[in-house]
Amino acid sequence: MMAASPFDAAIYRELLQDDEVAALFSDIAELRALIRVEVALAKVQGELGLIPLDSASAIERDITESKIDPASLAAATGRDGVPVPALIAALRATMESPEHAQYLHWGATSQDIMDTGLMLRLREMCDLVDQRLKLLLQALADNADTHAELPMAGRTRAQIATPTSFGAVIAAWGTPLLIHLEALAQLEPRLLRVSLAGASGNATALGDKAGAVRSALAAELELGDSPICWHSDRAALSEFASLLTRVSGSLAKMAEDIILATRSEVAELGLMRSGGSSTMPQKNNPVVAETLVSLFRLNTAMDGLMTQALLHHQQRDGVAWALEWHALPQICMATAKSLALALDLAGELQPEAAAMETHISSGNGLIYAEAISFKLAETMSRPAAQAVVKELCVQALEQGCSLSQLVAQSYPEIDWTAIATPATQLGDAALQARTFAARVRQLGDQCRS
Amino acid sequence: MMAASPFDAAIYRELLQDDEVAALFSDIAELRALIRVEVALAKVQGELGLIPLDSASAIERDITESKIDPASLAAATGRDGVPVPALIAALRATMESPEHAQYLHWGATSQDIMDTGLMLRLREMCDLVDQRLKLLLQALADNADTHAELPMAGRTRAQIATPTSFGAVIAAWGTPLLIHLEALAQLEPRLLRVSLAGASGNATALGDKAGAVRSALAAELELGDSPICWHSDRAALSEFASLLTRVSGSLAKMAEDIILATRSEVAELGLMRSGGSSTMPQKNNPVVAETLVSLFRLNTAMDGLMTQALLHHQQRDGVAWALEWHALPQICMATAKSLALALDLAGELQPEAAAMETHISSGNGLIYAEAISFKLAETMSRPAAQAVVKELCVQALEQGCSLSQLVAQSYPEIDWTAIATPATQLGDAALQARTFAARVRQLGDQCRS
Amino acid sequence: MMAASPFDAAIYRELLQDDEVAALFSDIAELRALIRVEVALAKVQGELGLIPLDSASAIERDITESKIDPASLAAATGRDGVPVPALIAALRATMESPEHAQYLHWGATSQDIMDTGLMLRLREMCDLVDQRLKLLLQALADNADTHAELPMAGRTRAQIATPTSFGAVIAAWGTPLLIHLEALAQLEPRLLRVSLAGASGNATALGDKAGAVRSALAAELELGDSPICWHSDRAALSEFASLLTRVSGSLAKMAEDIILATRSEVAELGLMRSGGSSTMPQKNNPVVAETLVSLFRLNTAMDGLMTQALLHHQQRDGVAWALEWHALPQICMATAKSLALALDLAGELQPEAAAMETHISSGNGLIYAEAISFKLAETMSRPAAQAVVKELCVQALEQGCSLSQLVAQSYPEIDWTAIATPATQLGDAALQARTFAARVRQLGDQCRS
Amino acid sequence: MMAASPFDAAIYRELLQDDEVAALFSDIAELRALIRVEVALAKVQGELGLIPLDSASAIERDITESKIDPASLAAATGRDGVPVPALIAALRATMESPEHAQYLHWGATSQDIMDTGLMLRLREMCDLVDQRLKLLLQALADNADTHAELPMAGRTRAQIATPTSFGAVIAAWGTPLLIHLEALAQLEPRLLRVSLAGASGNATALGDKAGAVRSALAAELELGDSPICWHSDRAALSEFASLLTRVSGSLAKMAEDIILATRSEVAELGLMRSGGSSTMPQKNNPVVAETLVSLFRLNTAMDGLMTQALLHHQQRDGVAWALEWHALPQICMATAKSLALALDLAGELQPEAAAMETHISSGNGLIYAEAISFKLAETMSRPAAQAVVKELCVQALEQGCSLSQLVAQSYPEIDWTAIATPATQLGDAALQARTFAARVRQLGDQCRS
Repeated sequence: MMAASPFDAAIYRELLQDDEVAALFSDIAELRALIRVEVALAKVQGELGLIPLDSASAIERDITESKIDPASLAAATGRDGVPVPALIAALRATMESPEHAQYLHWGATSQDIMDTGLMLRLREMCDLVDQRLKLLLQALADNADTHAELPMAGRTRAQIATPTSFGAVIAAWGTPLLIHLEALAQLEPRLLRVSLAGASGNATALGDKAGAVRSALAAELELGDSPICWHSDRAALSEFASLLTRVSGSLAKMAEDIILATRSEVAELGLMRSGGSSTMPQKNNPVVAETLVSLFRLNTAMDGLMTQALLHHQQRDGVAWALEWHALPQICMATAKSLALALDLAGELQPEAAAMETHISSGNGLIYAEAISFKLAETMSRPAAQAVVKELCVQALEQGCSLSQLVAQSYPEIDWTAIATPATQLGDAALQARTFAARVRQLGDQCRS
Repeated sequence: MMAASPFDAAIYRELLQDDEVAALFSDIAELRALIRVEVALAKVQGELGLIPLDSASAIERDITESKIDPASLAAATGRDGVPVPALIAALRATMESPEHAQYLHWGATSQDIMDTGLMLRLREMCDLVDQRLKLLLQALADNADTHAELPMAGRTRAQIATPTSFGAVIAAWGTPLLIHLEALAQLEPRLLRVSLAGASGNATALGDKAGAVRSALAAELELGDSPICWHSDRAALSEFASLLTRVSGSLAKMAEDIILATRSEVAELGLMRSGGSSTMPQKNNPVVAETLVSLFRLNTAMDGLMTQALLHHQQRDGVAWALEWHALPQICMATAKSLALALDLAGELQPEAAAMETHISSGNGLIYAEAISFKLAETMSRPAAQAVVKELCVQALEQGCSLSQLVAQSYPEIDWTAIATPATQLGDAALQARTFAARVRQLGDQCRS
Repeated sequence: MMAASPFDAAIYRELLQDDEVAALFSDIAELRALIRVEVALAKVQGELGLIPLDSASAIERDITESKIDPASLAAATGRDGVPVPALIAALRATMESPEHAQYLHWGATSQDIMDTGLMLRLREMCDLVDQRLKLLLQALADNADTHAELPMAGRTRAQIATPTSFGAVIAAWGTPLLIHLEALAQLEPRLLRVSLAGASGNATALGDKAGAVRSALAAELELGDSPICWHSDRAALSEFASLLTRVSGSLAKMAEDIILATRSEVAELGLMRSGGSSTMPQKNNPVVAETLVSLFRLNTAMDGLMTQALLHHQQRDGVAWALEWHALPQICMATAKSLALALDLAGELQPEAAAMETHISSGNGLIYAEAISFKLAETMSRPAAQAVVKELCVQALEQGCSLSQLVAQSYPEIDWTAIATPATQLGDAALQARTFAARVRQLGDQCRS
Repeated sequence: MMAASPFDAAIYRELLQDDEVAALFSDIAELRALIRVEVALAKVQGELGLIPLDSASAIERDITESKIDPASLAAATGRDGVPVPALIAALRATMESPEHAQYLHWGATSQDIMDTGLMLRLREMCDLVDQRLKLLLQALADNADTHAELPMAGRTRAQIATPTSFGAVIAAWGTPLLIHLEALAQLEPRLLRVSLAGASGNATALGDKAGAVRSALAAELELGDSPICWHSDRAALSEFASLLTRVSGSLAKMAEDIILATRSEVAELGLMRSGGSSTMPQKNNPVVAETLVSLFRLNTAMDGLMTQALLHHQQRDGVAWALEWHALPQICMATAKSLALALDLAGELQPEAAAMETHISSGNGLIYAEAISFKLAETMSRPAAQAVVKELCVQALEQGCSLSQLVAQSYPEIDWTAIATPATQLGDAALQARTFAARVRQLGDQCRS
């Protein structure tokens, strides 16, 4: 089987494919959506008297369940650049009654059918993203609660910085997902609209009933109406692609942090669903997390294409439109799979408290340098305290002893109890973890419209 | 003067720079914003008793108007990777009283100050985009109204398709801008927040007043509060960059249509603010429109970088963060300049009705092929009508006569009056133009919160 | 059939798929290449005494024609992130003799097999690109020769500029392809190498025969040797992707020029292999040329991914490596299809001399403004001449008469014969066309090594 | 000072700017290059009799040292979209003799001057890249030699894999740079050419001496000749941008490996030129290495723009051309700075042998799992050996003892001496290090043409 994309390769099916999205972006699904739009169009045109009611019924009866072989459309699609003319011809040919068949696709243009058919599928995609985001948030919220006070070394610029908690780290992973959920709800009404604007966008062939037919079609398909033609306005599609890319970006950030935490030298997280090597028996590779990061990088490239597609020439642009065909399904697949993989990861997070403790204590206790400098600043100026501590850090490293020991020797008059211990150095880490969890729970109590 | 970007080159100042954005992204503006945040921080910390009130006052008094030479921070910034440590040292040095100076930057980390300082500037950027979008929409709405019924050939896939109106074309340019305005309003509360989370994001050094100080700082600076640290969550910045890129994409689509309409062979729009050649006296180059398209392409590249920056490692990532420094100012500059240039264009649109009419009539009247086929379909099936018209199109081209002539000869029994004329073939083009204009006017009546 | 990429969709097969490349990037082709590498490895290891000769023979005999079902590897590939461990297990299972089967994949790592297997397929890709480039160049050279002196308006910045010839335009299309051919030949030795470096790249498991085995494997597979491990050095792959992207970029430039020349208002080139509309009987859409442009835009996105993949962490990077799996096959497909489509276009170029002549004459003869200014500069300074001509251009447009008439009236003393005619204004256009054609013919006389 | 790019900001000068490249891409440098081309053009035109010799001399004398204020060209550049018309006017105005001034810019078009002027600067850029690559290679070769046998854990997919040597790791960093050096030498003749093709590319205004003038200009400026116009063929520029991006990609890979090796938990490399924190006294941030990675990401975005610029419409494209102005200087700056920073890093590599040893020994000796399985395969089949070792790995982790202990207990009959020690497990790591160093030394013996 040919596979320009590994998403479509049998070998990589379990690694990369998402079954639900695969069902939305198959040849069959594409044709089914186009047919559904044509049937709905005929139905509302029959009801509004644009075409005979009998013809509308015949169209619904004859083509709703049509099984057109996608490959049979390939030659004409190769010539026309779009599959709709060939599909219309094939559907008409399958109808028993040419007198009714002629009313199929009445007054519409190819792009109307393809864009509206796409919307039917993107509606399912929106639901899927919404649901998976919520499931993932729930799993992260549980973890944030559980580990709200588990001490862990914070890392900034690849260096151990000051203590924090694993729960706060999880809250930082999950909070952007709450934002994405909000943005998705705001975007949907902009995105999920009907298109019925005819050849050059002014619905001429639908006469003075153009608006009524379009509104009725929107209602029939449960999509938004669109009084102004959006054939050449692809902003909502680009916005959707960017949102999905940001979703996968937030997941990739979580995944990258997990990769760093599962490195052999760190080992603060247990390896989940890990992969084997063809030659090294001991290897446990972070395959799931790696896949999340690479799917995000893929999305950034595809999102760029969707952005380029905004530059849609005049009333219809064969170049810009085709970019969406390449980019959008890959973004949907990558994002949905990323959400599924992230949910797997979230369900298997195994923090190693001992390793976390080790990294806090290691490094000669320099992790407490900031805290010590603030304590010291109670008796001298803050810049002086920082300079003193900086010097003591150097000594600690050279002498191989702990910073807190050195500082206690130098400033025995100060009570150093309760400084060099995570217990007092977590700040509002636990509060952040619980705030995040509470927000997610609030969300769980709401219904999706 | 060094200029890695032509935005910063004296030669290209009039072509590419936007003065208002230049004022937001100068060295001076960056330092001023950082200082403003430090002053506000000291002020609320003084009020909340974290630092002495006297010190807060001294800080406000001594550094508010500080004139630090940006170049004097270069060496330390080169070493530290961020300018804040050097700036703090410089500010402390300028203060007369070391006992107060030590309380500057109390408990904050560099990223808090830089991110909050950025927000102060992005708030101005949001206002600027909002205002310019509204001005541009107004100009487009006026044009859409004026030219609502001006017939023009619709072009699909680079070919003349069916008639439409110039007003409908303008409505298609403007409608996405309405969407962007809506999206901007939805985004702002997500974007414009304070950051005050300290070294590893849990505000340890601020003790149990961390939340109170952060909220007070937000109030002082009129930014949103942010109970969960966003040091490593860059989603809102990426969303903002994508939105600006979509704005410039919609403008570039308008510009590309204008370039196509001002081509020598088309000449349906008069050339505005056009450029000269060094060797061809007659040239009137569409420089403004070209610039809009190239600025959009630049934005797509920069937006991609902002998306990459989502992959922010652990609690702070020196790589990902720096990407924003390269990309965000360029996106702001490109978008603001694009809005200004588009407003210029919109104010000078000179449609050439005669040229538009010529292109409708030219091409042997094939533009009416669809309309004729629908008329013919009143007496035969639609597929049959399409086949007949397709054949007559070929004949018209071969014989060099008009399609409507040929069809009248072949089907004299049909009343062809009022088919091959724009008057009857504009569909709801004028309605779309007026719908757009009405939406814009509604907007004008609302106040910006 | 699932299709995240339209390359893999049955509906779009004729529009987008290239059969020869499809055969290189199918599941079957991937497995066949991997097996071929394993067989060759066993063979040379047998010859060099690393594994028993009998085992090498058994491996060759038993697995060379193995028909492993790609789908049967999906589960393990999903776990391991690479298909090789599962493939080895499956191949061993198909062998009748476990005592020989154990010597399969001796001392190699998954990446060795996958990278070397990829090279076998990229070698075919290189040949295909070389051959198609040469065929296309031949077709363009014929056209350049034929139309070397056919006058045509040159367009700069979307405006008619000065006359040139169609042959010169074709030479400008073709010349970069000559460059790409040269770059391909220079790149191949850098690209087409064997990989046999084992787990961490130092071939430990191959002992002191590591170098000998690797060289022998290279010879056996007719690839270059690679004494230094390239597991984490992906520069040659990125260079290859960039080269293919440049190839498709040069073709897209040709295609965009063809779209512009076939626009209804220009019509200087006849429409070739054009597409129909579902509602407009007269439409002849430039589908092939549009496809060339959109495939190039796709390539730019994919090329960006290949560049990102240069950032390959440490000795093997599961993230960066996977990016290549997404990007490289799509680039190969897009480029090969682009070459095939461009060859179609080149074979059907139908210049319309009359339309070309019309556009030269139209626009009140302003196309001769530069030539007239140079003639005038024989009697006055060049700046003065330019100013005079600029003024006469304005008059010509206002009065609707030709520039050459006006100038003849104003300067009757000058002999204006032979200025405002393409015959004298083509410069070295024909020479450029013939120079290009000659270079191509020279090439045709050389053999490909 | 305005700074849309941090390259141009005073604050970030030491962090990001490269002085030598800054000198190539300043306003002044751009004007100087344009003037140099105009002077050379006049000179060869005088010699070939196209313009009076006196005028050529006057031009050379009067404008060679012209000090045009870049800002004075801004208004006209804003109108024309290119600075050349304004520059010509300004230069003519500075000349004392209008009778000579008129021969300035004779028969050329703006793009000729700008493209040729760019080539003069890119030639310096090529030399700079060549020299810095060689210096960096030398530094890496020295390190590779020195540390050829220093044992270090190889890491694949973020996990410790098998032992290798630090020298081999350095060889893997350096080898792609050798390739880039080769590619640069191959590219230069394609890139560094003169442009002199006039308005529409056929040099009409230069008459029958067009070719002679162009060749003479090429010789005068020591650039290659270009018989076929390359106004609209930007392939060589794109190839150059891709090459520089690959250079910075290879450096970023090295930098990322260094960041990973300097992480607090790894500490196998000492921190060089590291940066401080505004609040944490102990921090030593890997600022230089981070900057290398972020500059590479910037380059990938800019390289994408250069690739987009291949789609250059017709005979000159104001959109595509402007993309180069944004992207190319930023790529040159980022790459040159990256080379300088990488040279700094290479000069300060401080491997911590003890930490390297610790990581090899840690993890219960699982790093020797592959080696043990090969040893075991001498007495059982390889798959059986792998299964046994996999099981023993699990036991070692559970029991917290070393794998080699366990295996010695289970298989006391085998001589396990000299297996679980780096001394025997480095494969050809040292050979690779020395092979790389030798190749670099060979290079050093060659002269640059």
